[in-house]
Amino acid sequence: MYPRLIQELIEVFSRFPGIGPRAGARFALYLTKVPGQEIDGLVSVLSRLKGEIGVCSFCFNLFDAKERDHGSQCAICRNPGRSTVFLCVVEKEEDVEAIEKSQVYKGRYFVLGGTVGTLRKKDIEKIRIKELADRVLKGTFQEIIIATNPTPEGEATALYVERSLEPLGVLLTRLARGIPIGGEIEYADEETLRNAFSGRHPQQKTGH
Amino acid sequence: MYPRLIQELIEVFSRFPGIGPRAGARFALYLTKVPGQEIDGLVSVLSRLKGEIGVCSFCFNLFDAKERDHGSQCAICRNPGRSTVFLCVVEKEEDVEAIEKSQVYKGRYFVLGGTVGTLRKKDIEKIRIKELADRVLKGTFQEIIIATNPTPEGEATALYVERSLEPLGVLLTRLARGIPIGGEIEYADEETLRNAFSGRHPQQKTGH
Repeated sequence: MYPRLIQELIEVFSRFPGIGPRAGARFALYLTKVPGQEIDGLVSVLSRLKGEIGVCSFCFNLFDAKERDHGSQCAICRNPGRSTVFLCVVEKEEDVEAIEKSQVYKGRYFVLGGTVGTLRKKDIEKIRIKELADRVLKGTFQEIIIATNPTPEGEATALYVERSLEPLGVLLTRLARGIPIGGEIEYADEETLRNAFSGRHPQQKTGH
Repeated sequence: MYPRLIQELIEVFSRFPGIGPRAGARFALYLTKVPGQEIDGLVSVLSRLKGEIGVCSFCFNLFDAKERDHGSQCAICRNPGRSTVFLCVVEKEEDVEAIEKSQVYKGRYFVLGGTVGTLRKKDIEKIRIKELADRVLKGTFQEIIIATNPTPEGEATALYVERSLEPLGVLLTRLARGIPIGGEIEYADEETLRNAFSGRHPQQKTGH
């Protein structure tokens, strides 16, 4: 039997997303072997987490709440250079991060905070659909880009978002699906190929 | 960009074994969503880790060092009921845990602390081969069971341990390899099948 403290650590890590008892044990044993300052650093970061990380009152993305003069909104929502015409609805914070890295989008975001697997009350209450409707109703957005993942859960969520926002009369769009850059047609699944064909477009002329 | 504190947390988690930046981000974002007491619990366990977890002076397994009267050895090494005829040499602490759970072995252990991929000095210095030879030399062990994994690294390590202990004139054995219980011959790899055939034995008569 592992020492009790190690068992406690394994239990905590086993609650991490995608982590079971075996990976949890690997993490706990790894930590017994790292230098003391590595543990101290982790303890320091964890101790400051709740106090220094805020949730944006508009888009629900995380932001650095340490600098109090920033108010209750994240840097993207506070940026007057970001268009308030487009609102991009994503499942989670990681998606904002990925889209921001690509620098292809200059509008605002809304983090749903999950997906709906079914349209049951329990599932629907997990995501911020009322808050989204509120932002659309009170904002100046002319297009809501539903950027959920092309997975079964993401598709169900997109449909639910569409249904919920349709009465508000705003333009709802979805990200294009198709062969990813660097992907191979040979290995593309049927659904991706179907999307690639139905979304086909004339070749754009390149300038000289 | 994630808030700086989240980035720091991602960096720490990305150093965990088998974890990259993406899983690291998932862990960090998960922690922003758990109740404060979950974080407090983790901080508490981590803060006590270095002080309360000892490394056994004989076998190098971890033990609860909080109770000072236990001395410098783990519960298995201190247990007078454990045979000092057999010494089971394993790669890591998890292996001791797995063997102990099975309750099939009542001897002592020795944790090598890793594997040797090559016989280069850099690799060899990573495992506790000198300490192992010392335990064998000074102990009363009559059989050293080399219980490394049947992986390329584990096999190389077993060979190195065998070579290092041979001059001491003690019986060296290896765990049997074969089809695992619940496994299927259809899916067994060639090497496993080779071991299963070469290690075949007459059917034991069951009692009535």
